[in-house]
Order: sequence, then structure tokens, then C-alpha cells
Amino acid sequence: MKTYLDCYPCFVNQALRCGRWVTKDETILKQLIDEVGMMLKDIPLTNTPPETGEIIFKKVREISGKNDPLAEVKNRSTQEVLEIYPQLKQMVTSSADPLMTAIRLAIAGNVIDFGISDDYDIGREIQETVGKEFEICDIEPFRSALTRAQNILYIGDNAGESVFDRLLIETMGKPTVFIVREEPVLNDVIFDDAVAAGLDKVANIYSSGSTAPGTILETCTREFRELFGDADLVIAKGQGNYEGLSTEKRPIYFLLKAKCPVIARDIGVNTGAIVLKRNGN
Amino acid sequence: MKTYLDCYPCFVNQALRCGRWVTKDETILKQLIDEVGMMLKDIPLTNTPPETGEIIFKKVREISGKNDPLAEVKNRSTQEVLEIYPQLKQMVTSSADPLMTAIRLAIAGNVIDFGISDDYDIGREIQETVGKEFEICDIEPFRSALTRAQNILYIGDNAGESVFDRLLIETMGKPTVFIVREEPVLNDVIFDDAVAAGLDKVANIYSSGSTAPGTILETCTREFRELFGDADLVIAKGQGNYEGLSTEKRPIYFLLKAKCPVIARDIGVNTGAIVLKRNGN
Repeated sequence: MKTYLDCYPCFVNQALRCGRWVTKDETILKQLIDEVGMMLKDIPLTNTPPETGEIIFKKVREISGKNDPLAEVKNRSTQEVLEIYPQLKQMVTSSADPLMTAIRLAIAGNVIDFGISDDYDIGREIQETVGKEFEICDIEPFRSALTRAQNILYIGDNAGESVFDRLLIETMGKPTVFIVREEPVLNDVIFDDAVAAGLDKVANIYSSGSTAPGTILETCTREFRELFGDADLVIAKGQGNYEGLSTEKRPIYFLLKAKCPVIARDIGVNTGAIVLKRNGN
Repeated sequence: MKTYLDCYPCFVNQALRCGRWVTKDETILKQLIDEVGMMLKDIPLTNTPPETGEIIFKKVREISGKNDPLAEVKNRSTQEVLEIYPQLKQMVTSSADPLMTAIRLAIAGNVIDFGISDDYDIGREIQETVGKEFEICDIEPFRSALTRAQNILYIGDNAGESVFDRLLIETMGKPTVFIVREEPVLNDVIFDDAVAAGLDKVANIYSSGSTAPGTILETCTREFRELFGDADLVIAKGQGNYEGLSTEKRPIYFLLKAKCPVIARDIGVNTGAIVLKRNGN
């Protein structure tokens, strides 16, 4: 997905929101805003938004003096979801359609996205998402692809959310590679977060090589690109992966809640819509 | 009111929103965003937001090549409200408390604010505002001040909204000076807009000398500052005037809907609150 004009004010807002995780100092935050403001002229509309997200987060990391400034908050998210994991598992196994329920829960988990907001209520989100109509639901081709698939590539999104992804991977019951980011960026899932969520029990965990809050193929490792090209079924979770991969040719199933109005418009749904969308040929 | 950190992303957003009134050309809009982005570093937290609003609008005016790029949309707003003016007048005269009803209607009219959004429904806004609880309502000191006042200074805000202001001025029934901006800025009321709204029938219309979307005393004319200092009762309409005048010492009655979350927090109310607030000593 390209950068839309409406993304630019949002970049400044994202910088401020991220900056506030690591400092309350107004002078430092103002400097961060100034730097991102001056940077806008160098971000062409042809970039994908996660490329900019990466640069903004690098500045936040500099301010914080920490490699993974959100480590603690990510860990808390993961523990919170692990606590309710038995109930979530029970919801899936007792459901008339376990796959669909696990997909819905995986989308509910997508609300744990500090790139958008840190104000969420996971219990309420689960209730809402389980009862909500999909605006796009390519479940039938998904079921067929899943039945045929010998291996799955599942591109993760945020820490905490990954516990929900684990449940969907368990439910699908196929050999799966779970993809994490190479370096800490926002609250995106990295290797340690995935292990903390128990993903290592249900999948092989690999890094895409991406240091952006999304998957931009050109910046990923050759190994990842091979996995991506060869996988029987690719699932890409969340907005950042959509932004990076929406124009790729191979079939990808995007699983997300369209929280950002610009992304929602790009997909062709309303803001807040839940989506299981098959892209590519 | 000072500039808060959250105002900076909003400045970029305001530039984009204003720019879209005058062009659909993405390259020009991107350039506007770039210029405002580079400008952020030069806007200290000590500025009032309307000072920045003025600079942004000057850039929009340059792009449009027009002195008053919103002339047409302002005129349409005014005509729309003039059409329902007889019903509004009827609401006031048949009310058990005409002054209070006219105040509520004047606040309802404050929704016609293209600095915030051009997406409003004036009929619905009137319904909501007439039935809504004030979060701050200094009506008793206001009534006393009005009874004693020999003259009123009423600082206008937006075109269209001014028709509602006219109704309140008629209802108060005291000699009034209605203040407009010196130059076109956003959809703020200037002399011609005030005449189109019929303000000349109920008040003397003067310019404050302000070319910002608000009243910043240091940039106003000496004549205005004298009127401001000498008036028995000062009413300041809308957010822009609050931003510019909130720290002034003399008593001012602010009449507004707190549409912006930052201003709402500064006043100490919830976003969307309606307010009749007495400031000063």
C-alpha cells in the first residue's frame, strides 16, 4: 500500500504517541516532533507506511536509550492473554466451527496494537469480534487452501496478539512457520516475544529480517523470501503486513481489523471492519 | 492557551484539510504538507494555536490564488442559517427562558467550523444542543453582567454561525459591537460575512485587526484593544477566541462547544461539552 496524504499528520501523531512511552519530557518530545516534521518532505507517496514507521521508531529508540523500549509493555500484553488462554481454547474447541472461531479470536487479538492506540479492552474486543459480521470473508477458498496445504507461513504482527495466533495455528493443525520481526519496532512481535507466547510449541519461529513494523519484501532476507514464495498457504496478520504486502502477486490471506481509516479505504471496507481477505492470483 | 504537543500533528492535518478546499492536486497538497512539516520546529509551545493557524492559511491562500478561498462556502453557510432564521427566532420568543435558548442556539451554530470539520448537520446540532446539559454554565453572573451592561463587545467566530450570534444579540437587546476578523482566514467571519448575516441591523460591526483564526490581543488594533478594555460585557465566541484570550485578566464570557480534545482538556471539560464560562477577575 502506498502512503496516502492522510498518513502524514498521522506520522507526526505516531511519533508523539511512541515518544510518550519512553519519556514525559516535553522538550524531548517537541524535538522528536520537529525531526519527524522535517522528515515529511523526504517521504514520497510511493513509500509504504511501515518504511516511515521504522524511521520514526528508530528516533524513539534513540531517545529512550533502550534497544527494545516497549519490552515491558509487550511482556505484560503477552502475560495478560496467556492468563485467559484456557478460556480462549475452550471457546474454540466447544465451537460448532472451531476454525472460524479461532480466526475471529485471532482478529480480536489484533487490537493489541500500540502503533494505533494503547487504549483497548481485550475482553470487550473478544465479545465484539466473535459476534461481528465480516465485511470481507474469503473463508471458503481459505478452507480449501488449508485442506491442501502441507505447510503454512504465518506472518505475525504484535506481541500479545501472538497468543491468539498460536491458538489459530493449533486449530489449523498443519506444519507452520511463524514469522517475527528482526528487531524491536513498536510493539511488534520479535523472537523472544513469540517464545514467551508459546509459539515455539506449535511452530518454527523465523525472522523475516524486517526491521519495519510490517513486511516489505525487498528489505527481508533471501531465506524469508524463499519461504514466502514456496509456502502452500500464507497468512499475513494485521495492518502493517497488509501495508507492505498488499500489492504482491502470490496468494496471501490477510487477517485483520481495519482500525485505520486510510487502510480501511484501501481495502474497501468501513473503519473497524473485520476482514479475512484473499489477495493475489 | 499555549500550544500543546498534540496540536502539532493537528497542524499538519489542518493544512491538508484546508488545502483540499482549494485543490485536489496531490503534488500541491504534498508540498503544502512538506512546508508545514518543516515549519513545526519554529512553532514554540508558548505560541497560541491561532498564530499557527494563520500561517497555515496563508499558505493555502497562496495555493488557491484567491484572497478569500472559502468565500463561496461561507456564503452558503450563511444562507442556510438565514433560511431557518424565522424558526430559530420563534424558538427563542416562545421559550420560557429566551436568553438561555438564544445562548444554546449560538453554541449550536459554533459547529459550523471548517477549521475542525466540514461535516456537520446543523438541524441535528440544534436539537442536541438545545437538550444538552452545560458542563460549565456561569449563567447567573452572566445575567447580572448583562442587566448592568450599557454596552457589549461580542467577538464573532465563523461565518454562518454569525446568524445565530445575531439572534443572541437581538435577544440581549443592548448596544453591541460585533467583532470580525480583519482578513479572510479559514471560514472565520469577516465584515462582508457579518453584513450578509444581517449583523449590521443589530450591532456595529468592527474588525479586531486580527488576521488569525482567533483573537490575539497583541496583534489587534489599538482601537479594538480599547473597545475590549472598556466594554461592560465581553462575549467571545468559539475555540479560536478562547485559544487567544483564555489568559487575559478582564472578565470574558466564553461561549463555545469544546470540539477539540486539547481545548476541552484546557477548559477542564469533556470533548463535545457545551460551555458558558466566565474567565478573569
